[in-house]
Parts: sequence; C-alpha cells; structure tokens
Amino acid sequence: MDIVIPLFDDFEPLDAIGPYQVLGYLPGATVRFVSTGGTGRVADTLGGLRLDVPVRYQEVESCDVLLVPGGNGTRPLLDEAGFLDWIRRVHATTRFTTSVCTGALLLGAAGLLKGLAATTHWAAAGELAAYGATYTPERVVRRERIVTAAGVSSGIDMALLLAALLTDETTAQAIQLYAEYDPQPPFDAGSVAKAPPAVLERIREIG
Amino acid sequence: MDIVIPLFDDFEPLDAIGPYQVLGYLPGATVRFVSTGGTGRVADTLGGLRLDVPVRYQEVESCDVLLVPGGNGTRPLLDEAGFLDWIRRVHATTRFTTSVCTGALLLGAAGLLKGLAATTHWAAAGELAAYGATYTPERVVRRERIVTAAGVSSGIDMALLLAALLTDETTAQAIQLYAEYDPQPPFDAGSVAKAPPAVLERIREIG
Repeated sequence: MDIVIPLFDDFEPLDAIGPYQVLGYLPGATVRFVSTGGTGRVADTLGGLRLDVPVRYQEVESCDVLLVPGGNGTRPLLDEAGFLDWIRRVHATTRFTTSVCTGALLLGAAGLLKGLAATTHWAAAGELAAYGATYTPERVVRRERIVTAAGVSSGIDMALLLAALLTDETTAQAIQLYAEYDPQPPFDAGSVAKAPPAVLERIREIG
Repeated sequence: MDIVIPLFDDFEPLDAIGPYQVLGYLPGATVRFVSTGGTGRVADTLGGLRLDVPVRYQEVESCDVLLVPGGNGTRPLLDEAGFLDWIRRVHATTRFTTSVCTGALLLGAAGLLKGLAATTHWAAAGELAAYGATYTPERVVRRERIVTAAGVSSGIDMALLLAALLTDETTAQAIQLYAEYDPQPPFDAGSVAKAPPAVLERIREIG
C-alpha cells in the first residue's frame, strides 16, 4: 500500500504529521513524502522543521492514497499547472484522494471538487466554494473516494477513518490506542461555533 | 520565550510535532529543535521524516520550556550520562520541564521524577515506576513545574495547557481554534480502559 504526501515550503506541520503518525503504522503500508520544489529541501510554515525530501512529485506516477496537506504554501501552488495536472493524473490511480485543511484548495484547483461536498480550514471556506465545491462544516467529509478534512488537527480523525477503510476497524483502533488518541483538550474552543468572541478576536494575532 | 525540543533518531513523530504545532504559534515564543547525535541529522521512528537539526543540545544552556518527546529512540539515551546531566542542568533554568510519552523515562533517568506523580505511554508505566515516579494514568499530569503527558497524541493537550500557563487562556484557545482542535475520533479506542480485547491483541502487530 503506497501512501503519498506532497510537501512544499510553508506547509502546516500537523496537517502532514498527524496523518503520518496514523497511516505510517498501517501494516503493509509505506508513507512517502514527496517534494514540490526542485531542491529536495522543505521547511514548514513555522520554520522550525527543515526536511530532507529527496523524491520529487514528478517521480510518482500512481499511489493508493494521495494526501495533500495545507498551509500558506498551498497558495503559490494554486497556479502551478504542472502540479495540478499531477494531482489529476495520480487521482486517476488512487483508492482515496484526500486533503487536510487548505490542501482542499489544491484538490479544488485541480478540478476534483466540482459539485462535491467538501471541507477545509474554517477560514478558507469561501476560497473552497470558488472551486465549485459545497463547503460542508464537518470534521471529515467523504464522497466516494475523495475525502477532505477540516483544519490542521482534523487530519488525525480522517486518517483513522482511512485506516479502517484500507484495512479494518480493529487495526484502525489499535493504531488509535498506540497513539493514545483519547483527546481531552483543556478547553472547548476548537471550532468557530464553540469559540468565545474574545478568542475570535485574538486569533488575528496568531495565524 | 525559548522553548527547546530535543530530537533523536527514532523519535515518535507526533510526540514532537503535536506540541510544536501549538507552542510554535505562541506570540513571542520560539521553538527550537536540538539534536542529540553528532551529525545534525535526525530520522523519526517510522523513517519517513529526515530532519536537518543543526543545533546540538550541548549548545543550549537554559530555556523557558524543555519538552522531551518519546519513541524507541529514548532507550539508548537512558544510559547517556552527558544527556541526562544536560536535562538536569537545563531543568534548573526552566519555567516548565515537560515530556510526552516515553520522554518521561528520560526525565526519570535524570532523577527529576523521584517521588512524583507522572505519566507516560500506557505501555511504559512499569518502566516509569522504576525511576521512583508514581505512574498516574491521566492524560496530562502537572506537579509544580514538571508536566508529563501520556502517549503520543496527548502532547497536544499538554501543549494547550502550557500555552495557557505561559500566556493566557484566550491565547491558548485561539491557537486551539487555529488548529481546529475539536477532536472527533471515529472510534473510542484511544485508552487501554476503552479498547476492546481484540484491539489489545492487534496492537502487538502494530508497534
């Protein structure tokens, strides 16, 4: 089972690493990171992670799962015809084509979400709709073999669903137990609907 | 605010990157990864992440938060007197000394957990007790300025608590909203108490 995650400068770290933590433990699966730039080096959007990603996306012709993470680095790629064409070509070969956060914008720009229910980071809902998708404010949205996750941390939930679809629920749950994913956030402010107004104000200073 | 996360070969990816996603957005904070080996290159336990970590731990004399992740790579470090001595020295300077998963074993081996309530990955509870800690099966355990988190994904919950302690609850919640951390795992198998027997069997094939 071949799982491919393209990485680009300014990717959002947990978008990629959350699903990697889950899918990397799938028995018989290999998760490969591929780079979109020409240097084989990729830095995340916070700048602390500097990754050696020697395989370029052009070297991949097909895979079982394509997982496109988000982050500020998605924006320049929205105009890169070669990369969008690659997404379309690889999508023709996958069992599941998936995204986390603003990775959905790249699926949208590649034309995969036209007329489809999909999700993305809450702050990018309008952008997603511009690609003909129906923004659906759920954590994970599956339509046949296209699966989109909401912002950043939602990729972990999506990956557990994918793990069950690719193997079985017992295996997915074993991976969940291994990662001790029994979340107990100290606050209940993880969605726009739940966050108090002061938090929505404060977020402008964060992102 | 200087936050330091040591990385070593065979670290568990989400142990380090979950907290990084949270603490990296703290206004005024810098998260620095430092390497324990001599090469400046670090690979995670799944082998897919190859990181350039040029700063060595010996170059750090003090920090505000020390966060020690876990993974199989903790085991060889349990016997490295130089690294354990560094943990003790830096601990004397921190506001919070913290661990995720089996990172707690390193705090234990450094002598920081004697007679203290602490947590770690559920599978390492016995090892933790050997260092004089009282294993406490909670997701995040805080005793004064030593904070330990349970397995892998629990580092996200701990980091949100730290974010609130280091700034304020509104800021922590804004970071939670930015990461859209409103977890909805598709299964409820993330702790030993909740996982069905078949899952406990299956996990032997995973880890």
